[in-house]
Amino acid sequence: MLRLTPPGFRRLLQAETFEAEYGGAEANVAVALAMWGEEAKFVSKVPANELGQAAVNKLRRYGVDTGSILRGGDRLGIYYVERGADRRASNIVYDRMNSAFACSEAEEYDWDKIFEGADWFHFTGITPALGKRTERITQTACEKAKGKGVRISCDVNYRSKLWSEESARAVMENFLQNYVDLCITNEYQAKELFSAPREQVAEYMSRKYSLGLVAFTYRKTFDATHNMISGAIYDGEHFYRSSEYLVEMVDRIGGGDAFAAGVLYGIGNRYTLEQTVRFAAAASCLKHSVEGDCCLVDKEQILQLADGGDLAQVKR
Amino acid sequence: MLRLTPPGFRRLLQAETFEAEYGGAEANVAVALAMWGEEAKFVSKVPANELGQAAVNKLRRYGVDTGSILRGGDRLGIYYVERGADRRASNIVYDRMNSAFACSEAEEYDWDKIFEGADWFHFTGITPALGKRTERITQTACEKAKGKGVRISCDVNYRSKLWSEESARAVMENFLQNYVDLCITNEYQAKELFSAPREQVAEYMSRKYSLGLVAFTYRKTFDATHNMISGAIYDGEHFYRSSEYLVEMVDRIGGGDAFAAGVLYGIGNRYTLEQTVRFAAAASCLKHSVEGDCCLVDKEQILQLADGGDLAQVKR
Amino acid sequence: MLRLTPPGFRRLLQAETFEAEYGGAEANVAVALAMWGEEAKFVSKVPANELGQAAVNKLRRYGVDTGSILRGGDRLGIYYVERGADRRASNIVYDRMNSAFACSEAEEYDWDKIFEGADWFHFTGITPALGKRTERITQTACEKAKGKGVRISCDVNYRSKLWSEESARAVMENFLQNYVDLCITNEYQAKELFSAPREQVAEYMSRKYSLGLVAFTYRKTFDATHNMISGAIYDGEHFYRSSEYLVEMVDRIGGGDAFAAGVLYGIGNRYTLEQTVRFAAAASCLKHSVEGDCCLVDKEQILQLADGGDLAQVKR
Amino acid sequence: MLRLTPPGFRRLLQAETFEAEYGGAEANVAVALAMWGEEAKFVSKVPANELGQAAVNKLRRYGVDTGSILRGGDRLGIYYVERGADRRASNIVYDRMNSAFACSEAEEYDWDKIFEGADWFHFTGITPALGKRTERITQTACEKAKGKGVRISCDVNYRSKLWSEESARAVMENFLQNYVDLCITNEYQAKELFSAPREQVAEYMSRKYSLGLVAFTYRKTFDATHNMISGAIYDGEHFYRSSEYLVEMVDRIGGGDAFAAGVLYGIGNRYTLEQTVRFAAAASCLKHSVEGDCCLVDKEQILQLADGGDLAQVKR
Amino acid sequence: MLRLTPPGFRRLLQAETFEAEYGGAEANVAVALAMWGEEAKFVSKVPANELGQAAVNKLRRYGVDTGSILRGGDRLGIYYVERGADRRASNIVYDRMNSAFACSEAEEYDWDKIFEGADWFHFTGITPALGKRTERITQTACEKAKGKGVRISCDVNYRSKLWSEESARAVMENFLQNYVDLCITNEYQAKELFSAPREQVAEYMSRKYSLGLVAFTYRKTFDATHNMISGAIYDGEHFYRSSEYLVEMVDRIGGGDAFAAGVLYGIGNRYTLEQTVRFAAAASCLKHSVEGDCCLVDKEQILQLADGGDLAQVKR
Amino acid sequence: MLRLTPPGFRRLLQAETFEAEYGGAEANVAVALAMWGEEAKFVSKVPANELGQAAVNKLRRYGVDTGSILRGGDRLGIYYVERGADRRASNIVYDRMNSAFACSEAEEYDWDKIFEGADWFHFTGITPALGKRTERITQTACEKAKGKGVRISCDVNYRSKLWSEESARAVMENFLQNYVDLCITNEYQAKELFSAPREQVAEYMSRKYSLGLVAFTYRKTFDATHNMISGAIYDGEHFYRSSEYLVEMVDRIGGGDAFAAGVLYGIGNRYTLEQTVRFAAAASCLKHSVEGDCCLVDKEQILQLADGGDLAQVKR
Repeated sequence: MLRLTPPGFRRLLQAETFEAEYGGAEANVAVALAMWGEEAKFVSKVPANELGQAAVNKLRRYGVDTGSILRGGDRLGIYYVERGADRRASNIVYDRMNSAFACSEAEEYDWDKIFEGADWFHFTGITPALGKRTERITQTACEKAKGKGVRISCDVNYRSKLWSEESARAVMENFLQNYVDLCITNEYQAKELFSAPREQVAEYMSRKYSLGLVAFTYRKTFDATHNMISGAIYDGEHFYRSSEYLVEMVDRIGGGDAFAAGVLYGIGNRYTLEQTVRFAAAASCLKHSVEGDCCLVDKEQILQLADGGDLAQVKR
Repeated sequence: MLRLTPPGFRRLLQAETFEAEYGGAEANVAVALAMWGEEAKFVSKVPANELGQAAVNKLRRYGVDTGSILRGGDRLGIYYVERGADRRASNIVYDRMNSAFACSEAEEYDWDKIFEGADWFHFTGITPALGKRTERITQTACEKAKGKGVRISCDVNYRSKLWSEESARAVMENFLQNYVDLCITNEYQAKELFSAPREQVAEYMSRKYSLGLVAFTYRKTFDATHNMISGAIYDGEHFYRSSEYLVEMVDRIGGGDAFAAGVLYGIGNRYTLEQTVRFAAAASCLKHSVEGDCCLVDKEQILQLADGGDLAQVKR
Repeated sequence: MLRLTPPGFRRLLQAETFEAEYGGAEANVAVALAMWGEEAKFVSKVPANELGQAAVNKLRRYGVDTGSILRGGDRLGIYYVERGADRRASNIVYDRMNSAFACSEAEEYDWDKIFEGADWFHFTGITPALGKRTERITQTACEKAKGKGVRISCDVNYRSKLWSEESARAVMENFLQNYVDLCITNEYQAKELFSAPREQVAEYMSRKYSLGLVAFTYRKTFDATHNMISGAIYDGEHFYRSSEYLVEMVDRIGGGDAFAAGVLYGIGNRYTLEQTVRFAAAASCLKHSVEGDCCLVDKEQILQLADGGDLAQVKR
Repeated sequence: MLRLTPPGFRRLLQAETFEAEYGGAEANVAVALAMWGEEAKFVSKVPANELGQAAVNKLRRYGVDTGSILRGGDRLGIYYVERGADRRASNIVYDRMNSAFACSEAEEYDWDKIFEGADWFHFTGITPALGKRTERITQTACEKAKGKGVRISCDVNYRSKLWSEESARAVMENFLQNYVDLCITNEYQAKELFSAPREQVAEYMSRKYSLGLVAFTYRKTFDATHNMISGAIYDGEHFYRSSEYLVEMVDRIGGGDAFAAGVLYGIGNRYTLEQTVRFAAAASCLKHSVEGDCCLVDKEQILQLADGGDLAQVKR
Repeated sequence: MLRLTPPGFRRLLQAETFEAEYGGAEANVAVALAMWGEEAKFVSKVPANELGQAAVNKLRRYGVDTGSILRGGDRLGIYYVERGADRRASNIVYDRMNSAFACSEAEEYDWDKIFEGADWFHFTGITPALGKRTERITQTACEKAKGKGVRISCDVNYRSKLWSEESARAVMENFLQNYVDLCITNEYQAKELFSAPREQVAEYMSRKYSLGLVAFTYRKTFDATHNMISGAIYDGEHFYRSSEYLVEMVDRIGGGDAFAAGVLYGIGNRYTLEQTVRFAAAASCLKHSVEGDCCLVDKEQILQLADGGDLAQVKR
Repeated sequence: MLRLTPPGFRRLLQAETFEAEYGGAEANVAVALAMWGEEAKFVSKVPANELGQAAVNKLRRYGVDTGSILRGGDRLGIYYVERGADRRASNIVYDRMNSAFACSEAEEYDWDKIFEGADWFHFTGITPALGKRTERITQTACEKAKGKGVRISCDVNYRSKLWSEESARAVMENFLQNYVDLCITNEYQAKELFSAPREQVAEYMSRKYSLGLVAFTYRKTFDATHNMISGAIYDGEHFYRSSEYLVEMVDRIGGGDAFAAGVLYGIGNRYTLEQTVRFAAAASCLKHSVEGDCCLVDKEQILQLADGGDLAQVKR
């Protein structure tokens, strides 16, 4: 997707220019993992024009494997981000209907090649939210991944501007129940979408959907630039929590994707779950200090913060 | 529509920012007429979000009456303009499918109010090119206008990226034959779309479609920044030609719309056709020296150029 | 007036570019009211050149009626704003002497047409501060408004760079005593200019000048970006206070004008005074999060904040 | 003076930012001479605020002696420059009335100190054009310079937006007749202001005003970016002409000032008049390729062009 | 290398910002080939810091294989480009001494892996010009390439700011005589460096150094933005010339690299030499219309121009 | 040195443009003193190209005497500054090896002329850290200064990216012991470099190196934008402390240099040490609110803050 953002704190009504960047939930996860030295492949379909190519180039720039991205279709999805400040909330306007990806069919993708050598398949709830076609793509991908022994990670990522809670519940329950090994969500989604009780949310999710791992993000919003964030992982037995970070945000978008990437990185590198959740929360914390969607932060800085180090000294 | 343009001569592949502006063929005509002190009303439908409002605000800024613009629908159409240079042509990528206007219905508009007190109704071939719905809107508007004695002006404006020559021919012939008083076109369109003979193009168009007036634009393209332009008007008897202008273009988009506005201005202000075509061609010439789609040039400057004056002295 | 602001936190000494915007106390009130759907007309005089036109266009863009603005005179007033940070205060350099408006005469304005259909006439103390001519304009406007049953609102807006306390007192007391229905001021002005006692400031103002309504803004300055703001209204009997907002400011200019607009909006829409002061303070709070002078914030967001809602969640 | 210029080819109506620079006819001459290693002192008065300081700093940056600039008064003069393109002329809007300099008195300046060690005093017709006060300043400066044996150079620089031809004629004739050693002008000014005959303009000027040297600039305007320029010097006996340069201009302002600086440089460095006029015309030619008012071009490049060298090869 | 360019036509003395891009002669060739769908690998050494990574990312963005780039050493080379205009030449300031690559040793590179599967090895004279170490790297690479049957292409690219003609002659003759299959040069270099006679330059070069192919670029410099360019190839028997293009340049840097890439592309895709030189010259022509060092132009556009097509029509 | 900074909070990996500024520890002190009206001369060597001239021009712009700066050598040193945010630290990448200054010899400087009329010679530990040559320059300067009765001030300014603690200790102890009258340092440097005990750091430094005055800066880093800073001076008998300032930083670089300048200013203007440390700490505090390296803050503002005044009110 193309992200268009007015400069500084300008509102859309005031914008004479837009900062242009290419991102999206799954793409952000891929970029973060590539930044940290992992092999990450991004699968999608972009139009066969310069905008599609620019989106591909953004991913290549940060080291993501773009060899499985299809070309064709009508358009690249767009979203507009208006940065909030103080009590004025950030605002996102989606214009992603009929995107090349949303209109693509499961059969267009060469799943065998896509999953060759893969350890994990990661998707978010935004993908099936785009329509029946992408729901089918997700379903096909899950089946193929399952069949090849590729583990499946899902970030619930509920977006009320894309689908209703009812639709989301029906579709996501199917995925969680039947395919997902690692589910990333938050308390609100667990309770509202999946009817988790007030207490024991993690246990409920874990048991109800037979999830190997459930990871949670927590966010308290004080105002448009100050949030308190943290994370947790539950493995069916123990509950591991990260530190809480009060962050003064440069760019809020992609904070959850950085957490997801951090969880996958920790697990993939055989960190303990304790270390994993600390790494993921530190990655998410530091993402908020970076402009754009992507967690362009070095692994070393994240580890230093995760280990309680004092990061903010000028390095010179 | 939202126009997104990379800065300077950057290609879309290189763009990290876009200049954002709101324009479109009919909107450009309205802005030019309002710049020159005429009452100009723009009719369309924009989404009920900040992008729709920004498009309305652009028109208000330059004095266009926006009171008849509807709100609703899904999205604002977009087009990307890559400025060419030397032998690298300018490139336009359209992303206007499913725009609020393209999805609107003829019945949504209050035609009586729209045409109240109007002298002219102007549309371009781009509007029916967007689909059956907008073709019906155009048809309805023409009928209503006709019924109220409002004269009708049509800029053929054929866009091969929007529809085929066959579709365009069928649809546009209907409008020309049955409604249009003033047709603005060029030799290529006359010959290819309407099968005009090699010679006597104006006579052919005038007679075949019983057009009161046919106005022509001429453009020879030397390279992406140098064009030779001129205009002509035929009233069924006489053929009036403007001077030829070799222009070094700052922004090529909207040159034809400035010509159309100039013709309407001249006729509306009871200029002779000789004066009218000179005014229209001078307006078009000067438009090319202005950034953006709109002919933001004062009437006085246009008249001075139309009268053969020496414009390019610094005024101090 | 033309406002020139160095980018970011650059000092005037460092500026190689200026952000250009057109604003002013009364214009800001007009833009806010137009943003919220009210009919707002701005009356002034601007030079008959492109800078004057640009000022008019800014107001048109946001929906203000500019039909009563006169053209002529020598120049558009200018003010330079240097954004402060931390303990370095924002700094304003005025260059507004001899502006077209300051040099205009009361007789140039068509007061009957100006006040036709108006409910309120709003002015600020800055207008008479510009000189004898604008004092006479204000006086004339007040008389005409009074004569036509238009209610009068006055924001005291004392500027020490424009006139002395003595001059301001003499002039403003005349307006308050004889014309004003709604006076907007703050404790400092009430005490220093109008000799209000330490306690019972509102009662004093209300009684001494027979004011139907007195509205107060409160501002505690912690540093150049952090202020605590709130508002109050006194109707001669009861004193209504808004919440206090600790704001991290994007742009401090126009915070008082947003409050004034909020008060007028509340009264004009038959809000209770309780609701009115909450709306006005919320509008002022949110203005500080917007770049430029104007309160470009939707009514819905203001109401949500006024009602205690949680605004700063990203909307997606 | 502060120069405000919209970016690129934007019109003032479109500008959301201005490029800010400090310049003016005499200041430009001083900067050019300092660039080439000469001691150049600029004399003026600027307001005692940050804008005045910024103007001083611009001159210091390029090595001009600013020790005799006074502080005080109300404001810094401003001029807006709208860059033209093709047949759309560049446009200048002056806002320099009541500037600190225009309101200063001859007695405020310490003329003895100012002229200490000076070889030349240079002024342009713009200075007396600002009003009676600056006419007196010019007169006083000329007398003081004359008394100290400082030679006087005057660039006629007639500006119709500042004064009428009648006023200019009366005032400038006084200066030329009584004080000026070197007069820089053009054919238009010689004929219109000073009633020179169609032929033998140089002889006429030289004899009528007993001028030691008369230098002429020639400019043919093809369009807003293409001019043909050249220069000439007449010493009462011989007439020396430079080459003609067809220039594609980046910034037209200051071309004449670069010529004046070139003449003073040549004479000050004992060039022959032949060499002098070639240097001056080459300096003027190259100025047009530099953004801003000042001839920021190295002496070596100018000499190379003056000597017929091939400049435009990339140096690497 | 990092290229730093002041915006627009600003001189280095005026620059408050630089446009930052990563380029270099060989890198530009790699990017062009990757743009056109070829596999292109770039070999160098960059410092193990963010600047080195940014240089790698630029190449990845456009699809170049960066897997053989080493990390380490002190710094990334820099060059400053001041865009010329009219008669003011573009100026390049090099600051590339002691770059990580210039200080690297031949032994650090894994030549077997580098040349695995390669068809061509391309280098320019700039590499050995950097010092003894890079001369040895070039020598080693040539030997390894030769040993593996990889053909060798060399662009002479003489830079007088880097080494003397004597040094260049000695070193380059060695490469040409012993390794090079395809030599790209121009008349000036052939005559001055390699003592080619006034006539029969191609024959001389071809015979003296036993070159399979010699390709020539021709450039006549009219001014800083207008050049006449063309190309030729000689295969020992026939001499093939492209059209001549008078180009109005957006960015002059990289025009020769685009030609080199074009020759390699043509040969690699079994074009005739006639077609090859036309493709290469068209690529070079179009490069000049693109900002930055790289020929970011689609193959289709180049072919269209090479075939004499009319490119500069807006595509819409 | 040239400082290159990505805009806003962009990382070096994301930068497409750099803000360019010229600074450095000693240069920053000179600029601050010149801002406050002191005569300040900067001594260094810059390359004889446009970058060297641009560095000189920056100093001239703010009133520093640049008459003793030498021209020659290869390059201007560079440093890249990546602004941190929240827990992401600011990062500095040095590229200053082999700069013209670092390669200059003590004998090139005309020390007699340099110290003519000087009261103080100020240097920082960064100068000898650049290598043996600059250590010798520092030594020579200290001897010459001592011989002429010029007092010597030294800011220890330890940079671990430039030299080891061992080298720094040996070299700096020599300077402190034999030449320095006023030493500016912080607790960390005193303890780690100079083995000061945990307590009585000031007494230890003062006695061990027979320093007339020791000034200390204190900085607690909360995150990349929030620091707590203060200062102290010890005169061998009494210890004077400033207030503590919690600063929200716009630009962190140069905060120590502003403190050093403040100490020199206070002493030079016969402030008491109490007043001096308050002025210096206030200068440092306010520097953090200014973009760039230099303390571009008026003396009056600093005095107001030093005296406990309330600065952050908008001035209007």
